[in-house]
Amino acid sequence: MNTHARQGLLDLLFSTEPMRDTFSDHARIQAMLDFERALAMASADGGLLPSEAASAIASQCDAQRFNPDELARGATLAGNLAIPLVDALTDLVSREDEPAARFVHWGATSQDAIDSGLVLQMRQGLDLLDSDLARLIGACAKLAHEYAKTPIAGRTWLQQATPITFGLKVAGWLSAARRSQSRLRDTRNRALTLQFGGASGSLATFGEAGPAVVVKLAAYLELPKPDLPWHTQRDRIAEVATTLGLLVGSLGKIARDVSLLSQSEVAEASEPHAAGRGVSSSMPQKRNPVGSAVALAAAQRVPGLVATLLAAMPQEHERGLGGWQAEWDVVPEIFLLAAGALGRMVEVVEGLTIDSERMRANLEGANGLLYAESVSSALARSLGRKRAQDLVRDATRRATTDSIHLRQALASIPEIEEILSPGALDALFDIHQATAPSERLTLGILDD
Amino acid sequence: MNTHARQGLLDLLFSTEPMRDTFSDHARIQAMLDFERALAMASADGGLLPSEAASAIASQCDAQRFNPDELARGATLAGNLAIPLVDALTDLVSREDEPAARFVHWGATSQDAIDSGLVLQMRQGLDLLDSDLARLIGACAKLAHEYAKTPIAGRTWLQQATPITFGLKVAGWLSAARRSQSRLRDTRNRALTLQFGGASGSLATFGEAGPAVVVKLAAYLELPKPDLPWHTQRDRIAEVATTLGLLVGSLGKIARDVSLLSQSEVAEASEPHAAGRGVSSSMPQKRNPVGSAVALAAAQRVPGLVATLLAAMPQEHERGLGGWQAEWDVVPEIFLLAAGALGRMVEVVEGLTIDSERMRANLEGANGLLYAESVSSALARSLGRKRAQDLVRDATRRATTDSIHLRQALASIPEIEEILSPGALDALFDIHQATAPSERLTLGILDD
Amino acid sequence: MNTHARQGLLDLLFSTEPMRDTFSDHARIQAMLDFERALAMASADGGLLPSEAASAIASQCDAQRFNPDELARGATLAGNLAIPLVDALTDLVSREDEPAARFVHWGATSQDAIDSGLVLQMRQGLDLLDSDLARLIGACAKLAHEYAKTPIAGRTWLQQATPITFGLKVAGWLSAARRSQSRLRDTRNRALTLQFGGASGSLATFGEAGPAVVVKLAAYLELPKPDLPWHTQRDRIAEVATTLGLLVGSLGKIARDVSLLSQSEVAEASEPHAAGRGVSSSMPQKRNPVGSAVALAAAQRVPGLVATLLAAMPQEHERGLGGWQAEWDVVPEIFLLAAGALGRMVEVVEGLTIDSERMRANLEGANGLLYAESVSSALARSLGRKRAQDLVRDATRRATTDSIHLRQALASIPEIEEILSPGALDALFDIHQATAPSERLTLGILDD
Amino acid sequence: MNTHARQGLLDLLFSTEPMRDTFSDHARIQAMLDFERALAMASADGGLLPSEAASAIASQCDAQRFNPDELARGATLAGNLAIPLVDALTDLVSREDEPAARFVHWGATSQDAIDSGLVLQMRQGLDLLDSDLARLIGACAKLAHEYAKTPIAGRTWLQQATPITFGLKVAGWLSAARRSQSRLRDTRNRALTLQFGGASGSLATFGEAGPAVVVKLAAYLELPKPDLPWHTQRDRIAEVATTLGLLVGSLGKIARDVSLLSQSEVAEASEPHAAGRGVSSSMPQKRNPVGSAVALAAAQRVPGLVATLLAAMPQEHERGLGGWQAEWDVVPEIFLLAAGALGRMVEVVEGLTIDSERMRANLEGANGLLYAESVSSALARSLGRKRAQDLVRDATRRATTDSIHLRQALASIPEIEEILSPGALDALFDIHQATAPSERLTLGILDD
Repeated sequence: MNTHARQGLLDLLFSTEPMRDTFSDHARIQAMLDFERALAMASADGGLLPSEAASAIASQCDAQRFNPDELARGATLAGNLAIPLVDALTDLVSREDEPAARFVHWGATSQDAIDSGLVLQMRQGLDLLDSDLARLIGACAKLAHEYAKTPIAGRTWLQQATPITFGLKVAGWLSAARRSQSRLRDTRNRALTLQFGGASGSLATFGEAGPAVVVKLAAYLELPKPDLPWHTQRDRIAEVATTLGLLVGSLGKIARDVSLLSQSEVAEASEPHAAGRGVSSSMPQKRNPVGSAVALAAAQRVPGLVATLLAAMPQEHERGLGGWQAEWDVVPEIFLLAAGALGRMVEVVEGLTIDSERMRANLEGANGLLYAESVSSALARSLGRKRAQDLVRDATRRATTDSIHLRQALASIPEIEEILSPGALDALFDIHQATAPSERLTLGILDD
Repeated sequence: MNTHARQGLLDLLFSTEPMRDTFSDHARIQAMLDFERALAMASADGGLLPSEAASAIASQCDAQRFNPDELARGATLAGNLAIPLVDALTDLVSREDEPAARFVHWGATSQDAIDSGLVLQMRQGLDLLDSDLARLIGACAKLAHEYAKTPIAGRTWLQQATPITFGLKVAGWLSAARRSQSRLRDTRNRALTLQFGGASGSLATFGEAGPAVVVKLAAYLELPKPDLPWHTQRDRIAEVATTLGLLVGSLGKIARDVSLLSQSEVAEASEPHAAGRGVSSSMPQKRNPVGSAVALAAAQRVPGLVATLLAAMPQEHERGLGGWQAEWDVVPEIFLLAAGALGRMVEVVEGLTIDSERMRANLEGANGLLYAESVSSALARSLGRKRAQDLVRDATRRATTDSIHLRQALASIPEIEEILSPGALDALFDIHQATAPSERLTLGILDD
Repeated sequence: MNTHARQGLLDLLFSTEPMRDTFSDHARIQAMLDFERALAMASADGGLLPSEAASAIASQCDAQRFNPDELARGATLAGNLAIPLVDALTDLVSREDEPAARFVHWGATSQDAIDSGLVLQMRQGLDLLDSDLARLIGACAKLAHEYAKTPIAGRTWLQQATPITFGLKVAGWLSAARRSQSRLRDTRNRALTLQFGGASGSLATFGEAGPAVVVKLAAYLELPKPDLPWHTQRDRIAEVATTLGLLVGSLGKIARDVSLLSQSEVAEASEPHAAGRGVSSSMPQKRNPVGSAVALAAAQRVPGLVATLLAAMPQEHERGLGGWQAEWDVVPEIFLLAAGALGRMVEVVEGLTIDSERMRANLEGANGLLYAESVSSALARSLGRKRAQDLVRDATRRATTDSIHLRQALASIPEIEEILSPGALDALFDIHQATAPSERLTLGILDD
Repeated sequence: MNTHARQGLLDLLFSTEPMRDTFSDHARIQAMLDFERALAMASADGGLLPSEAASAIASQCDAQRFNPDELARGATLAGNLAIPLVDALTDLVSREDEPAARFVHWGATSQDAIDSGLVLQMRQGLDLLDSDLARLIGACAKLAHEYAKTPIAGRTWLQQATPITFGLKVAGWLSAARRSQSRLRDTRNRALTLQFGGASGSLATFGEAGPAVVVKLAAYLELPKPDLPWHTQRDRIAEVATTLGLLVGSLGKIARDVSLLSQSEVAEASEPHAAGRGVSSSMPQKRNPVGSAVALAAAQRVPGLVATLLAAMPQEHERGLGGWQAEWDVVPEIFLLAAGALGRMVEVVEGLTIDSERMRANLEGANGLLYAESVSSALARSLGRKRAQDLVRDATRRATTDSIHLRQALASIPEIEEILSPGALDALFDIHQATAPSERLTLGILDD
């Protein structure tokens, strides 16, 4: 079995290789086997089985020894993967050490293996995300610093608004990425815990030895021991999903900005160049924002998956019917999509092509309309907001109709001349003055 | 390449083999190649390329000739699968017939191949569902007929309510399944059409030959010709998803009922017996409702996927960024889950184990409380609904507290005696009279 | 009680007045009362109560007579609105005609009144949508016709692609709107049926008179009689929701296009001008696309609501717990949002400001890059797609770097000269030739 | 204007009065006015306007002075509520102190008022939830303690599994409620911050005075100052939604358990009795679990709303189009539903009626099948899991078929007799031994 096999034609497009490997069939099997091995060893430590038996079991807990096709078929009958896996493990052990086979999975229930295995996979998945997120944060910080002073049109409701700097826009990406980093770490601490409870989650099979076995088992897997088994309390699983959902949303925001900036008519930034990247099957001039498409697609898909996990939380009694099963493919899917979106945004931010001149040209090309708020605010101190806006609004219309600069359109209005001297008016159209606050905010967050 | 390979450990549990094959990597590639072949032939018919070139192209349109790993890698760069596929096809053709290679994919755009390919897969998927749905309808009709007269407790808000028949419950499943059948067919007619528009969806490359090529192409693929290319009008795709969503919801309803009826404390019906089916890894007495779990899990997962497709509809201009890409794995996932839920419910309904005696016992064991509405309605005609309900409510409380039958509790109330003779009262507790209307409704729908 | 009162500060922004009235508290109460009145009259026709009693009941079935605050409080205890409503109706009737009060709601259950009432509201809601949709279709057809020949840059992945016409873009909106019209009508026929079943949905209270009463009741309400009561078969309700979801998605597509076209840097179209419309609280030059914002917000919100209704379908036994209750506010919310999105898009399409010159300028301003596909396709017939694309791609790069027209960049390439005469090359850059197929498609759909 | 008016017929059913008031129209207006007042005062402190002007503005910032119908109409034109509100405020101020009116909203943008207002409402909403959650935690702890030793059938996949205690089931509810408490507090700290940035979020209008005004403004509103304005970084808002989503999921789990336990055939627990609570309009014996229905309905509705907010995160540039607007009604809706679900579950857990005898009877009535795992585990140590399960499985079948106790069915199997003495076998059927681990876990969590 090739443990790194492609699992779907689009997996590499929408995810990353390391995350795909973390949630591969092979890894799923191995994670459950890691649980079974640790269980045998912990039980042996607790005197519940001979240490030779534990060793015999442990030695078979290698996914390479298992036939995934048989496990898949077995799952259709049993309703979950742990049952055929435990059966197959028992067979393997009994071939090597017949008496040891008696102790395979002893005292555990399927969900213990499945949930703990998933937790182990999620731990690895969160490590991968944490590492890529650190790269994204670094790339955003570098970009924000470099372009802290570079003027660009601020845009609201998709309309040009007032001048800001490109650094400030990137600082927003950075700020959100930092919060995602903090959330990922908090969630990891709260959500990744051992699952171990036996049949109805009461550890009944172990009698008085239960608590000690749990402690040992948690230690072997390097997982915290939870206050209680959590077979039908799924908030931890769902919390991981929501944290990834928030991350993907923030990545989608970066992708949204990049894709809008790279429109032909805006052309202020574009995704990194690479041979063959973003080509079209019909149009030779195209360079499609492939990375942004991946992140935006993830931002469309993950919310529905998060909703599924939230809606699946009210599971029945001691083990659920339908809700739990709904998690099995959905949790991996969220990790895969989050990794893809993050990996692509790291690439995009690290390699972003930026055209500062075009930023300036778009800003200045608008006949000075982006300074309307600046003039209006200055006038408002004397005229009030409404009168000031009415005056400036008329001037912006004249500027547009007559294709003249707003500065010129304003020049001929006596009511304005009385309040603002030509010098004062010029100052309101000064790009450095207009963007100094953007620079200040940007540098402020970089110091944090 | 094994075209029937397992693609995920849980695919067989949550889907069916034929649907998995319909949406396998292999099938996805083949469907796009089917488009490319038909395009070459239609263009040749339209005189746009030599018929030998079309034959040369057609002869290479076999998924077995393509390396999916290379396509997957190519897609990460190009942003979609069609680009590396067309490149690979061009290479293959040029090895056999160099001049013919010039005409590969001529006039088309990636999305034409991807969307038309998807439509071909969906057509096959809808056929599979239609066929299984016919089986479900047959099984429900048989069951409804067989148990048309079998009394069972009607239950509302999870409380026993009034007597109905088990046939009536199944008739409800049947009625919904028939509506799903009708919807699947309507949707198929409205939604499955050729996608073909070229670069910006205007068929510009073909000039005046465009309309004729479209007609030929549609004919080769046996697909209706749409009024317009629909690269960013995704309502057809989303409609298919919603129709499957409705089907899965109705299947979830069957699963909900079966799982509730098979609770240990109710035990009126249970999923089919089979060796190893629904076993537990720890509890020998268990027979878990595995089929219902699959359908309920699908009913949890599909709504979020449908929402994703609906939310992805507002795609940009002539071809979208993010929304379209979000569809690529989501549409297949919905088909897979729908097939799994349907397949399992066919199995469950066809092989349902029914315990009519237990149904009767549960109904009668409730001290006659299920007849409270019948008595209350009868009294209401004389006393009014409120007074009647108050009287009967008191009697039901006495019946519960004193563990006596409601008939007995009512017997001693003078106000009731005045209205209802003992015989009339007895008649209200007659199970045949109580369930005759259920039988009538059930037989009525079977005649439809 | 003011029956047209504002119910929420944002209702008028996100919906329309007629739809808000259709789903007002008042209308909800009246619709349930319409059911109660029809039930009394149908039962009298069936000989189950005196016709004077039916008249007495009918005369009180006026929402103005009921105190909504008391009903709201009553619902918190009873768990639904029908119970306090029926109690209040009984009181009202008994004050006028004590004996008639006995027959209020006779044989029905709460869900009969609530569901049938909802169906009546939905019928009115669908009428409103149908009427506005006809206006949208008319406006799109007019616009498509008017601009059938007007060149505009086709854009894919947010990049300029090849020339099309603005009429073709609008034809896409039209085509989707027509399909929504067809779906709304189909859904109306399939989904809007009477709900009437009594306690457990078996019509047991009516005995043999049941079928006749159902027929009469359906006739009074002018609703089709369903094959069976459908208390826990919710596919009809959910189908209405999905149909509205598809409509809203298609409206979001129009809004997406309009908002992108009205970007300051594109400026090819903008929402209708009106005093105060789309103003900013700080920027005098702004004219925000308010209508598009409403439709896009609806397109974000409705999918989650549709998912809720789909996920709520597997309801328990004869009447559900949680799923049914989840519908009560969600169905109205979908209608309100759909009406708002539709109403706004009617306004926007009817009054769209179009700048054909700017469309042309944006198209031509791109140094002829939009003709790259046209040249490449022509060359491909001789050179093959790959070589042709490579040649043209190099030329597009030179055009961009040197700021020259693509025509000029191509002129100096000998390989191209051999294939295409200067005249043939010029023809490939002819906008009329490039957009004739767009015009043809547009006119074609207008003839349909 | 009645500030406590009912806003929808079902608001009291699905929410609570205090939360409805927190998110009433009135409260929404007041919260924005609180921002405007604080802005005036902070600007005056920063020397940007005369303190008399600030006082004049502050004195008008009272929602009672505003006509909500006019604001609602104004919002349809302007696209948001802040614009008509600021206009109306300016009018009010100018009537009292004409010069002061010039400074209303000075330097701010609509979104500053709308977002900061929402944050103020959310703070109050989180306080309400925190307080009710503390009650829920207290009620769960009390119940878990009281029933720590009370045996009940553990149930998995809706089948009886092994004995546990009712205290352990409640301990699971408690554990999840505590995690929700911790999440609510973390989220509050991370997510509730001032929004203030002016036109494009750069604080440009204030020039160098910006930072000082922000600090003052934050102090007046008692909100933390964020690192940056966050007009299009919506992760904080979405995080609040996800945290409430997790809470509602955990409340749904309690409701699921209660509703299943209160089924007529199980009857181990039921919601609190109260006159009129959970009555039926047709069936006098019914006592519907109204509180659970509310919580389960919320658990169906909130996930879709959370998904909407996550999907709306990728907002455009400096202020979004569609995504932001989608939040305005959805955030309040989530708070309302969460409050309703929490309030009902507090009621239900505090007043839960528990029938310990019925728990025991259901457990014992199953012919000892719930002890099958205990016997099987004991045998597995000698025979291996598979052989042990096979033996016990056969015995459970015989017990079921012959209606005898499992103890008796096992007694006659020689292979078992060899391993387990009659005394050892009896011990495996001892309820105290079987449930001691449940009690231990329960008491353990109560000590935490």
